[in-house]
Amino acid sequence: MEKKISATIIGSGNVGSQLAKLFFKKGISIDAIYNKHKASGISLAKAVNSIYISEKNRIPNNSTFYLVALKDDYYLEILKGMDLTEKLIIHTSGSLESKKINPFSKRWGCLYPMQTLIKNDNINWKEVAFYIEASNNEDEKLIGSVCKKLEFNFSKVNSDQRKKLHISAVSTNNFTYHLLSTIKSFCEENDLNYEDLKFLLQKSIDNSFEKEAFSMQTGPASRKDLKLIENHLNLLENDSNLKEIYELFSKQILKKHHDHEL
Amino acid sequence: MEKKISATIIGSGNVGSQLAKLFFKKGISIDAIYNKHKASGISLAKAVNSIYISEKNRIPNNSTFYLVALKDDYYLEILKGMDLTEKLIIHTSGSLESKKINPFSKRWGCLYPMQTLIKNDNINWKEVAFYIEASNNEDEKLIGSVCKKLEFNFSKVNSDQRKKLHISAVSTNNFTYHLLSTIKSFCEENDLNYEDLKFLLQKSIDNSFEKEAFSMQTGPASRKDLKLIENHLNLLENDSNLKEIYELFSKQILKKHHDHEL
Repeated sequence: MEKKISATIIGSGNVGSQLAKLFFKKGISIDAIYNKHKASGISLAKAVNSIYISEKNRIPNNSTFYLVALKDDYYLEILKGMDLTEKLIIHTSGSLESKKINPFSKRWGCLYPMQTLIKNDNINWKEVAFYIEASNNEDEKLIGSVCKKLEFNFSKVNSDQRKKLHISAVSTNNFTYHLLSTIKSFCEENDLNYEDLKFLLQKSIDNSFEKEAFSMQTGPASRKDLKLIENHLNLLENDSNLKEIYELFSKQILKKHHDHEL
Repeated sequence: MEKKISATIIGSGNVGSQLAKLFFKKGISIDAIYNKHKASGISLAKAVNSIYISEKNRIPNNSTFYLVALKDDYYLEILKGMDLTEKLIIHTSGSLESKKINPFSKRWGCLYPMQTLIKNDNINWKEVAFYIEASNNEDEKLIGSVCKKLEFNFSKVNSDQRKKLHISAVSTNNFTYHLLSTIKSFCEENDLNYEDLKFLLQKSIDNSFEKEAFSMQTGPASRKDLKLIENHLNLLENDSNLKEIYELFSKQILKKHHDHEL
């Protein structure tokens, strides 16, 4: 009953490389790797027992699906000139409106991995949430069955929801990292041990998952200790990033927790 | 060689209660509990086999040390009228300049637990970093030996460093929580599953500890994808808190990673 599934991979960057290697490992054969830059395309093709192509007119015409893993801005540019009408084009972007693929093929889908996938990292695929979408039921089922074959943790979301998920992902991943690395720099400049903050951080994170949002807020702003906030801001005179964050967050927490008193 | 150690506890709030109960459990006898509000003072006194007092002139005169666990603003108010000259007064504040205790006794110290201690929570004391300070070597040794007896993870820092640590703690604990609970609310409003972000978050945190600060920044701002940032800000039109955070963080990340290009 199961048909042989094969894929052509368009783009051999972080996401394309990681998925191609996993597909290959799990028995999905890779018909070809297309990439603008030769070296990375050849290297991936070798790793997945496939061929590298650089001309758009050499794209295979018999792959079960065409996985496009490119930056949002490049999709239209790269797909132009490839004959993929009636082929299933699957993109991997968090923010691309899938309908934009319509001009190239009415059969489109999405397989968005919500995780940082770095080319040569060892990925724990159990820790990647995938979101899928397709232009028709049959292709949605096909993408779902590929996900099951790969033992992915996946859900269906439409492009609108996926865009919002992507905002949440950017905020969670990049902003938490920015906040923490700013604090780490402050610690290093002041000869304090950033590692000591690990337990505090874990507590905050656990609270955010276990309790209702906002209910476990602690600290000077939540108890309206304006004097301490002012002292802290004075001490941050030379750390403009942390000072701006301190000001904005304190303002928001004060407003959230004391608006009724103002 | 070891002298019998005893303590009077001034303040039966979250920190006073947790430390008093631990002291008692570890064989430091509690001479008295002072607290303005009766019910909580009596309840703690019972739990640690001690007496409750509400009059300042009944403060015991023979405790090894007097632990003051109050909000910063109350220290001076509460200590006024207690005869503690020559007694070792130990406060627990992250932000109090210890020297401010000088008018009450020249023997002062600090035992600052850098963790959220909620009155009736089960605290894992291995996950609390303590910072100590004292006005003289002998009392510093005494506080150190109490910490050892209690198997605390502790270090010495002066008031200036402790204030900066406190800023780091507030930023780590309260701001991470605020960021995450804001994202959680956004997810709930948009029918997205906040739990799905757990792995992404863990990756960011691990990166902040394992790598050099700033080196692992990812996301639209770090790759200067201004178009995506604008799209995200448009989608956040109705979420003013997350929008403000998104704007500030993107601005800072752009500046940090692309200043040389501007």
